[in-house]
This record gives sequence, C-alpha cells and structure tokens, in this order.
Amino acid sequence: MGLVVQKYGGSSVADAEGIKRVAKRIVDAKKAGHQVVVVVSAMGDTTDELIDLAEQVSPMPAGREFDMLLTAGERISMALLAMAIKNLGHEAQSFTGSQAGVITDSVHNKARIIDVTPGRIRTALDGGNIAIVAGFQGVSADSKDITTLGRGGSDTTAVALAAALDAEVCEIYTDVDGVFTADPRVVKKARKIDWISSEDMLELAASGSKVLLHRCVEYARRYNIPIHVRSSFSGLPGTWVSNEKPNGDEQVEHAIISGVAHDVSEAKITVVGVPDKPGEAAAIFRAIADAEINIDMIVQNVSAAATALTDISFTLPKTEGPKAIEALEKTKAAIGFDSLRYDDQIGKISLVGAGMKTNPGVTADFFKALSDAGVNIELISTSEIRISVVTRQDDVNEAVRAVHTAFGLDSDSDEAVVYGGTGR
Amino acid sequence: MGLVVQKYGGSSVADAEGIKRVAKRIVDAKKAGHQVVVVVSAMGDTTDELIDLAEQVSPMPAGREFDMLLTAGERISMALLAMAIKNLGHEAQSFTGSQAGVITDSVHNKARIIDVTPGRIRTALDGGNIAIVAGFQGVSADSKDITTLGRGGSDTTAVALAAALDAEVCEIYTDVDGVFTADPRVVKKARKIDWISSEDMLELAASGSKVLLHRCVEYARRYNIPIHVRSSFSGLPGTWVSNEKPNGDEQVEHAIISGVAHDVSEAKITVVGVPDKPGEAAAIFRAIADAEINIDMIVQNVSAAATALTDISFTLPKTEGPKAIEALEKTKAAIGFDSLRYDDQIGKISLVGAGMKTNPGVTADFFKALSDAGVNIELISTSEIRISVVTRQDDVNEAVRAVHTAFGLDSDSDEAVVYGGTGR
Repeated sequence: MGLVVQKYGGSSVADAEGIKRVAKRIVDAKKAGHQVVVVVSAMGDTTDELIDLAEQVSPMPAGREFDMLLTAGERISMALLAMAIKNLGHEAQSFTGSQAGVITDSVHNKARIIDVTPGRIRTALDGGNIAIVAGFQGVSADSKDITTLGRGGSDTTAVALAAALDAEVCEIYTDVDGVFTADPRVVKKARKIDWISSEDMLELAASGSKVLLHRCVEYARRYNIPIHVRSSFSGLPGTWVSNEKPNGDEQVEHAIISGVAHDVSEAKITVVGVPDKPGEAAAIFRAIADAEINIDMIVQNVSAAATALTDISFTLPKTEGPKAIEALEKTKAAIGFDSLRYDDQIGKISLVGAGMKTNPGVTADFFKALSDAGVNIELISTSEIRISVVTRQDDVNEAVRAVHTAFGLDSDSDEAVVYGGTGR
Repeated sequence: MGLVVQKYGGSSVADAEGIKRVAKRIVDAKKAGHQVVVVVSAMGDTTDELIDLAEQVSPMPAGREFDMLLTAGERISMALLAMAIKNLGHEAQSFTGSQAGVITDSVHNKARIIDVTPGRIRTALDGGNIAIVAGFQGVSADSKDITTLGRGGSDTTAVALAAALDAEVCEIYTDVDGVFTADPRVVKKARKIDWISSEDMLELAASGSKVLLHRCVEYARRYNIPIHVRSSFSGLPGTWVSNEKPNGDEQVEHAIISGVAHDVSEAKITVVGVPDKPGEAAAIFRAIADAEINIDMIVQNVSAAATALTDISFTLPKTEGPKAIEALEKTKAAIGFDSLRYDDQIGKISLVGAGMKTNPGVTADFFKALSDAGVNIELISTSEIRISVVTRQDDVNEAVRAVHTAFGLDSDSDEAVVYGGTGR
C-alpha cells in the first residue's frame, strides 16, 4: 500500500456535515493501509463571498492582497477537516500551500507552480499523520508572498504534490461520477468512461469538458501520475486518466472515440475585407496577442479574385470579446480592413479520440451525423486526435446527441446516467 | 514625524464600510508624515463564527488546528484593509503574524510572544508602504506552526511591534473614547482619563477594567511604549498610558486616585473546617495550581481556638469554578477539611491610584463610603496602589457609584459621559 493524494472540491466540503463525511472517507483510506495526503478547496461559496467583499472595498483589488484574502478560504476548510479527522481518532495536521512547499512564480491570481518541496508533509506522514494541504495556493519564490493558482488550481496542487511525493494515484473527488462520453446534462445516454488516455483527456479539457482542467491533466501527463476522478458522494469507481492503460487490465479497451465535448463559452470575430497580401493576417493576430488574448480557431476565406479582399474569422472566450474588438479597432487604419463582425451565438462541438489517427472514416462520419441532424457547420478545425466544428449555439445540444449516437457511444441502458452529487 | 503603530479591533472593521472608514484614518496618519504600521483584528463576529464551525465538526478541537482556523479571520480583514488603502491611492501591504516576525512559544490558543523580527515590515515601510499586520497570531519558534495569542491578543501584537520597531506611540483604536474613572455604563458621571501611569493601568486591568488587557499594558510598561487608547469612531483624543507623564505637559495632573474598577466575573470558594496546622493551606493551593487555575484573593479566618479548625476562602474566575471544585474534592481525604462552599454571586470593587501610597486616609475613606452606602464587605485585599473588596454582586453598582462620588471622581458636568461607538 502506497501513498495516495486525495483532492476534495468546495461542494464536497460545503458545510460541517460535508466535512465530516469527507473525513470518514479519508480515514477509510488510511485504515486500508495508505499514507494519505489530502488537498482541499475552500468551503462551498466561501471564495465567491470573499471576492464580493473585496469588490465592496475596492473596484480593482491589488493582486497580492487579493491572493492573501482568497487563501483564507482553504485555511478554514483544511483546519476544520483536520479537526474532524482527529475527532475520528486519527492523527491529522493541516498545512498551507507555503508550509507544504508549493513554490510558484510571482504572477498573482494565476501563479504557476515551479517547484514542490514537501519536507513538512513527509515528516507529518512519517509521524503517522494524515496531511491536509490547502489547495489553490502557494508562495512565490522571489518575494515570499502568498500566491493563488487561479480557479480550479486545487486540482493542480493535488497533482503536483502527487508528483513530488511519488504517489500511486491522485484521486480527484468531485460531485460527478467521473468523465463521461458527453455532458450527461445534454446527452442522457452518455456513458461514464472507465479509462481515458491523458492525451485524449487533454483534448476533451481543451474542448469544453469541465471535469478536469487542462493544466492539471498536462501536469499529470508530464510526471506520469495516474488520476482517478470520482464522486465524493457515491463512492463508486470513477474514471482513470493515465498515460498508459492500467497494468494487466486488458479488459480496459482503448476506444476509437473517447467522447464528444461541447463549449458555448466562445464568440466569433470576423475581420471583413482584409487586403489579401502577405503580412495582413500577422498584423491582426499581433494586435490580439499584444492585448494578451488567447484565441482558439482561425479560418481565412478564399479571396474573392475580383476584389483581392478576404475575410478572417477566429474564435475566443466571450469574456475577451470586448478587449479584442477594442484592440482591433485601434489598428484598423494600419491594417486597412473594412469592418468587424462579432457573434456570440456560436457553439463548438468536438470529437476526441486517439483512434481517429488510424481510422480515416471518422471525419466523414462526423460531418454526415451533423448533416443528418440538419446542423450547419460554420468553421472547422482539426488536430491529430480531435475534430472541432463551430455551429449556431441553438444547434449545439442536438448536434452533440447526434454525434454521440452516430459513434456508438450511447449507453446500452435506457436509464438516464446518474449525474451524481448535489447537482452543483 | 516618527513611526506609529495603530491597532483596530473587530468592531471597527465589522463590514466593508468600517474597513473603508478605518482606511481613511490610516491614510490621514500617513499624510501627516508618519510611517504607519497597522495591526488589525478579525472582522466583527468572524472569530465567533469560526469557533461555531469548529464545534460543529469536533467537540474538542485540537489546538494546532484551532489556531490555523482562527487565523483565517485576520487574514481576511488585513487583505481587505490593504485593498481599501490602495484604493485611496496609497501603497499598502498586508502581513500575517508569521510574515511580520511575531515569534511565539508553542502553547496553542494562548501563545506568548518571545521575539519579534520585523524585517519584512521595515522593508515595506522603507519602500513607502503602509504595513498591515494580522493581530492575535504568530508562529512558534520550535515547530513553525501557526499560533494565536488568545482573546485580546491583537493589542499585545500592536505593543510588541511598537517595541520592536521603536515606535513613538502605539494607538489602540476601539469603540470607546478611552479609559474612564469607572465603567460609564454603571457610573454616568465617570470621566475620561487624559493620562494614567502604566502602573495604575495595570492594577485597573487586573481589577476588571476591560479597555486594555493586563498583558498588553505589562508589555508596554516593560519596553516603555506609550499607549494611546482612543475611539475609531469619534476621532477625539483618548487616554494616554505611559510610564512617565508626557514630557512638558504640566497640565496633566497625577491624580491620587485613578479610578474605580469592578468585576462580577469571579466566584468565591470557601474550604470549611481545615485543620489549623502548618502545610494545610499549601496543600490546598498546590491542588489548585496543579489544575492550572489562577486564583485572585485569598483570606484565612482566625482559627476558632476550641476546634483548631479554620476556613480558607479564595476567589477565582467563574469559568474555573467547576474545575477547582473537582480538584479540591479529589484531595479532601488527604487534606482533611469538612466541606466546600461555592458562591458565584459575589462582586469585586477596586480603588486604584499610586497616590494612596502617600495618603494614609484613603483606606478609611473607602470603607466609609461603602458603609454609608450600606454595602457589606466580605473579603479585603490590598496592594501598594490598590484596595479591593468583595461584596454581594447585587451591591456592586451602587458601591462603585458611592466610591466614585466619595473620591471626587464625578465629572463636573451633569451631562452623561458619552460612551462612544457602537455600544458593542
């Protein structure tokens, strides 16, 4: 029996009852003979409440102080969790990100982990303790200031600690039963995936699947840490995410298609009437990059020969839309385009699976399924193991269901898949 | 213009509005040319809410985790206060007790400060920042664990930082206008004291005055730090507490009597029928000390010659009553007393003033005032600059008013003294 890292999200520890339930689960792992390190998020809505307070005292809270404020949230949940475990007769100690040795860069509110030096965690484990660590937070190498890793950062804390401590597995407890072949709220027949490769999981996360963040999966892939995503409510086995198929488990089948993801959080900008000559596209995307906006898909139309003008479209998070429009308007004269069109009524559907590399029919089947469902395709983008299309937002749910059925992903059972937990 | 340390209690920063009001006051001190270090408590009822959560998960929360939990409170208030100051256009940085160099022993929940190494505070000040420090908390020298100083510990943090930084003054902002000659809720004609010696303030604090804690005054006396207790609401000058009269201020008069304090938080235990021979009293108080109970007054009656038995009475905090009774019952056979009597309906009235050393009539006047008011005295205890008596609790308010009038402490004005603030 080796070391396991368990991570519990805010909905799992939303109140005293939740904390006590989680404490029992942790103690069970300890009783089973594991060394246990637990990463915990802030309770329920604590972080939102703290953000609200910050906005009341300052319209633009300073990054350093904002991080100091938010980290109070995990401090509360981790101390309570340690108390609840001790109340069950087991030894536990809680540690802040700084005490746990989570060293980051100095970018407040979205710091990156640059090192993990878990000496105090090792000492606590060697002393027979369960170690409880605050997720989402660290300390900057340069200034020794408290930093936070951005929303969802607790998953990254868990994987980083698992890597530094050479854990057997990083268990991510959440309020759903695992990773599904599609969002079960949209596709009633979505199936829970028993195992998915890190590579496919990365593409799903990049394509709108919310269960695991891209950064967390990327970290686990690099350090070869198996992740087990599962429900803190049901206790059922969830989804394993790892670089290789689990050892000796030949029943785990590497599906051609892992799943269908969708994303309605993006918008589309079209730059109309761009002179079709070298350097124009570069100028446009330089302006976007200088505004620190990440874009997703890019399509350039074939130039209309008569005018020698072309249109360039790209997608980006809706939240970045106004900033992008502003940045482009400023360069309008220099670039010499006609106008900008902004469209936030789009949706993206992505099909992900390493199997499509060796199955050339996948793309054709994908487009046929969409066509049969009467869904119009506006943009297309592909990688080796993913095809994404942009459609009208209103068509997204129907498109996801059609594709899910066409690729044989529907569960055999007619019963709805349980989407677990509190529904949060 | 030198360095000032300002401390704001929880009622001064109870909500976003309070934090913004305090931020303005701090910025005023900075604008006046001071270097400013601010010690802040947790917002309003935060600490009580955290204690309530702890009790929900564990009937006996572990000290280490309890301290980790409670220190989240100041983390929130200090970050918000720094944000609010920055929003007014001034630079501010917040620091935890650990970051501020508040080093303590390892006694969780009531740690003692053993050193202060405020290197980061100095750096912040030298960089033009206002430094905001979490009150009430530190880090243990041995284990590097987070500790708390116990209730009211933020005042001690402020004085300790003032000493370590060689501050001109430690300003304690609270919800009353200063130290009064008696509790204004009991004595309408109580006067605010402009200056009081540390020595007299120590006796008042030990006798039930709640404005400053004994530990904080003791620390300030030892390091010769002047304290200015004042209201965060009115902005009026408050009470100066220092070892020497303020320089060049000859109008500040050293009163014979500083004030009248009262305390209804104690109980009296009488050990009845103790054999009147050497070692019996020692055995009783050894049992009490071993149970880690602090006692206040002790009186041994004259032995009745016929029986060679005596009674021993002492007072102690009501909260310690059950523990003391238990400790004594266990030693009953060994000591050989008859019975125990427990009385929690007592009150203590104390008259404090260095002037009584050289004014022999004070004691007689004190007893006469009580007698004229029809108040019966049950126990008496004296120090060089204090006389205390125990009476029935029901008589306390009347006794305090009578003594206050008899010693000429009543304010000239017929108007009620304003007791300031929120009335908390």
